[in-house]
Amino acid sequence: MRALWLDGQSLSLREDLPHPTPSNDEALVRVELAGICATDLELCRGYFNFKGIIGHEFVGRIVEAKAAPHRIGERVVGEINAACSTCALCQRGLASHCPNRTVLGILGRNGAFAEMLTLPLQNLHPVPEQVSNDVAVFCEPLAAALEIQEQLKLSKEQRVLLIGAGRLGQLIAQTLQVLGVDLSVLVRREKQEHLLKKRGIKTIVQVELPQSGVDVVVEASGHPAGLALARRAVRPGGTIVLKSTYAEKAELDFSLLVVDEITLIGSRCGPFPEALQALAAGKVDPVPLIEGRYGLEDGLQAMTQAAEPGALKVLLQP
Amino acid sequence: MRALWLDGQSLSLREDLPHPTPSNDEALVRVELAGICATDLELCRGYFNFKGIIGHEFVGRIVEAKAAPHRIGERVVGEINAACSTCALCQRGLASHCPNRTVLGILGRNGAFAEMLTLPLQNLHPVPEQVSNDVAVFCEPLAAALEIQEQLKLSKEQRVLLIGAGRLGQLIAQTLQVLGVDLSVLVRREKQEHLLKKRGIKTIVQVELPQSGVDVVVEASGHPAGLALARRAVRPGGTIVLKSTYAEKAELDFSLLVVDEITLIGSRCGPFPEALQALAAGKVDPVPLIEGRYGLEDGLQAMTQAAEPGALKVLLQP
Repeated sequence: MRALWLDGQSLSLREDLPHPTPSNDEALVRVELAGICATDLELCRGYFNFKGIIGHEFVGRIVEAKAAPHRIGERVVGEINAACSTCALCQRGLASHCPNRTVLGILGRNGAFAEMLTLPLQNLHPVPEQVSNDVAVFCEPLAAALEIQEQLKLSKEQRVLLIGAGRLGQLIAQTLQVLGVDLSVLVRREKQEHLLKKRGIKTIVQVELPQSGVDVVVEASGHPAGLALARRAVRPGGTIVLKSTYAEKAELDFSLLVVDEITLIGSRCGPFPEALQALAAGKVDPVPLIEGRYGLEDGLQAMTQAAEPGALKVLLQP
Repeated sequence: MRALWLDGQSLSLREDLPHPTPSNDEALVRVELAGICATDLELCRGYFNFKGIIGHEFVGRIVEAKAAPHRIGERVVGEINAACSTCALCQRGLASHCPNRTVLGILGRNGAFAEMLTLPLQNLHPVPEQVSNDVAVFCEPLAAALEIQEQLKLSKEQRVLLIGAGRLGQLIAQTLQVLGVDLSVLVRREKQEHLLKKRGIKTIVQVELPQSGVDVVVEASGHPAGLALARRAVRPGGTIVLKSTYAEKAELDFSLLVVDEITLIGSRCGPFPEALQALAAGKVDPVPLIEGRYGLEDGLQAMTQAAEPGALKVLLQP
């Protein structure tokens, strides 16, 4: 089959790959649409030293499922962490942190920029009829945006600053708007600003640090400078949520973290059911973020567009 | 009056200092007993660039109080942050983080290694009759230990690793034992181990990292290596509480913090009423931590003893 194959830092389109074979508890999924995210671009820079098919945002259809033949034909999105279900962390309900896990297109498991993929049946969530593929393909990053609310109780009085309004930042902004917090989004590009303003979300182009700081800063810029800015903007006793993984080294004065009693929360993957619900209810509208659409045969070109500064969502259609 | 005076990194005993003059909302307090803490030692190394009388752990007696003459004669301990009470943070109940604050013996306010000190009346808490000076002098560091429970909900099932069993670590260990969590304390010295074992607290001399990690790590070692160890020992989704301020630079891989969804909480000063209550009820026994007792005239010698590796509490009697 056709897929985008990464070997070290070398990405290529291959036509010669065999269809994957699902194990007994897995399904074979025909990919209908996939999305390119910042992690895919970082993988191509050598991050995680991955060898295999990349891609982890997708919507597809189950074509084979030994343990659940009734699910064949189901349109699904998929949680990307495939856990062992037997280790101490899995037993405690922390499957997404299983040390033995594979991760779709990221760690030890071929990904979604392919005609077919496999995932454990329990990872696959049926997509409600009214949710189109263009919308459903955003389920994985939207879940990551919603993880912030899983980890941190946010209330309407709270002043929240979001740093970064790119692919993930736009989704985070929409979810925080739904919550009704006092939100400002730091934008670097007119395009980002325009999208947010259209939804009535307050944007700023420079952080005017209020004397007392903001309660919560969500750092989703992808740049270490974002963390430094978050530290300056947050009030004593406040919280910084880190959504960015940095390829570069980030620095922070830990003594000041203690003196100001700052809480720093690392935040990664989130809940699919809540994300599907938000998409089905139309609370979040990701479609305006789509900027490009390519056949898998033009996958390298798609990756180039996705890597352009300020690019939002680029989709791949196998 | 007599006091320990710091100028840059030069500490001296001075006899020529005037008695401090309390403002209208302050009291003049005669210091009866003071304790030396790690911060005092760091101040002497140039940390915070403080010039003045050091010392912030004390028990004393009010000798002058214009706004509350009925409190004259009261035996008191004192919260060290003197806030402006008018800024946005003070208005929101975050007085200990007031950007205009002075801090006893640390920032813009002369401290407790003196015959007399001044503090706002509202900072001074009466000491219950049954609490001796030897016990009451530990109120400030005990409050700092209890701050962990203010910031983080801890339950009995949780596995907690405490790194560091020095002055502050010993008090933290006792407060966590009272809570009933599944506690292990990493000790480096026999003396520390002995004190903890006598109270039935589990000690370890090496962290055997369980596959799934511990739920909470409290880092109170004062060394950046403690933070690195905390990162290795905590489970994904777990929490690191930072009680140490490091003079040296500490490093942490922020990307791994995100991938493993670690929460990092900076923790500083804590609640005096709860600390006094714990001392009055005998839940915590700090007296075995006392290793030295000096007159203020031998203050430099006291500081030297407190700076010895592994030293616990050294007291100063003006």
